[in-house]
Amino acid sequence: MTGRTRSGRRAGDSGTRDAILAAARRQFAAGGYDGTTIRAIAADAAVDPALVHHFHGTKERLFAAAMQLPVVPSELITAVLTAERERSGDGLRAHIGEAIVRTVLMAWDGEDARAAFVGLLRSASTNEQAVRTLREFVTSTILAALTAGLDTVDPAQAQYRAALAASQIVGLAFTRYVLQLEPIVSAGHAELIAAIGPTVQRYLNGDLT
Amino acid sequence: MTGRTRSGRRAGDSGTRDAILAAARRQFAAGGYDGTTIRAIAADAAVDPALVHHFHGTKERLFAAAMQLPVVPSELITAVLTAERERSGDGLRAHIGEAIVRTVLMAWDGEDARAAFVGLLRSASTNEQAVRTLREFVTSTILAALTAGLDTVDPAQAQYRAALAASQIVGLAFTRYVLQLEPIVSAGHAELIAAIGPTVQRYLNGDLT
Repeated sequence: MTGRTRSGRRAGDSGTRDAILAAARRQFAAGGYDGTTIRAIAADAAVDPALVHHFHGTKERLFAAAMQLPVVPSELITAVLTAERERSGDGLRAHIGEAIVRTVLMAWDGEDARAAFVGLLRSASTNEQAVRTLREFVTSTILAALTAGLDTVDPAQAQYRAALAASQIVGLAFTRYVLQLEPIVSAGHAELIAAIGPTVQRYLNGDLT
Repeated sequence: MTGRTRSGRRAGDSGTRDAILAAARRQFAAGGYDGTTIRAIAADAAVDPALVHHFHGTKERLFAAAMQLPVVPSELITAVLTAERERSGDGLRAHIGEAIVRTVLMAWDGEDARAAFVGLLRSASTNEQAVRTLREFVTSTILAALTAGLDTVDPAQAQYRAALAASQIVGLAFTRYVLQLEPIVSAGHAELIAAIGPTVQRYLNGDLT
């Protein structure tokens, strides 16, 4: 079977993969997150939609890959919420805040995290359409996953609570990775989790009045 | 006295003022906040340093004007801390967190606030030197004013506490004014102060362990 390397991958795979990612960036930039389909990205890259699914799975995974995010946010959040639920049984999930801060720090402390975050900020500060795309992505994936996990709180408040939690997480990421403000940068995970975990916990599950 | 308008301002004032602001942007961009002097900005604008002081007062005020910030941060923080101290006497300042969030919302909800914040983000995400300038400005003005006001807490912790508070305030500004994440955008001041005030209060004055 000519055209395949010894590892079994087709010689053109990385080129096709790159073409799909470039098409994804163009389509998300032009149409926002919600308005962009796998089908439109496939058409732009001149490949079959099934190939896009094969390489990247969901639209969220494709967006994460195109933006070089270190993680797929909603999958990470769902994993954390599920683990905490199993750990603490049916009672109040008193450690969700800490678990989320710990998970974020571990995900973002990777080498490429700062570059990815700065890239998102740069696009968000460049034009209105990029802001809209990022807002739709955060709402459709991160806030949706958090809100779905908040099944013990008033549904009418769940979106607000998730957005408050996002405000603190975004602020932590900005001060630690972009602004690099001391002593936030050199603070250890345990110290930051103890300080910021209860904030996220209260936003998700505590008294806000 | 030719060259003066009826209001008493010299006809060339606005041109000189603009030249000083342009020189300030160049000098801050090249030398950072800490390393830039009024004298260097005056030399760049080919005016006497006394004129720069006359128009803009302090270096912080000049930076705020050059970056079109809606407020002069350390002056605002000092005013809030002083007012809260007078209001609550010598006891624990239990409402500093709420007062800071209220002040930030009032300052930033002005028309030009979003443009100024996006401008800072854009420069910070564009290059390393701009990040350094912004970091030095935040540290030398905002954190210094907050830290100075925290005379009831362990001095070794004051800078960390101020930075934690900054992380939440930056996150609020980012989600409300840049990302425009609902329902944070449409939330009223009272609602946001009730939710976020206690976070800032705890960072500045509460138990972090």
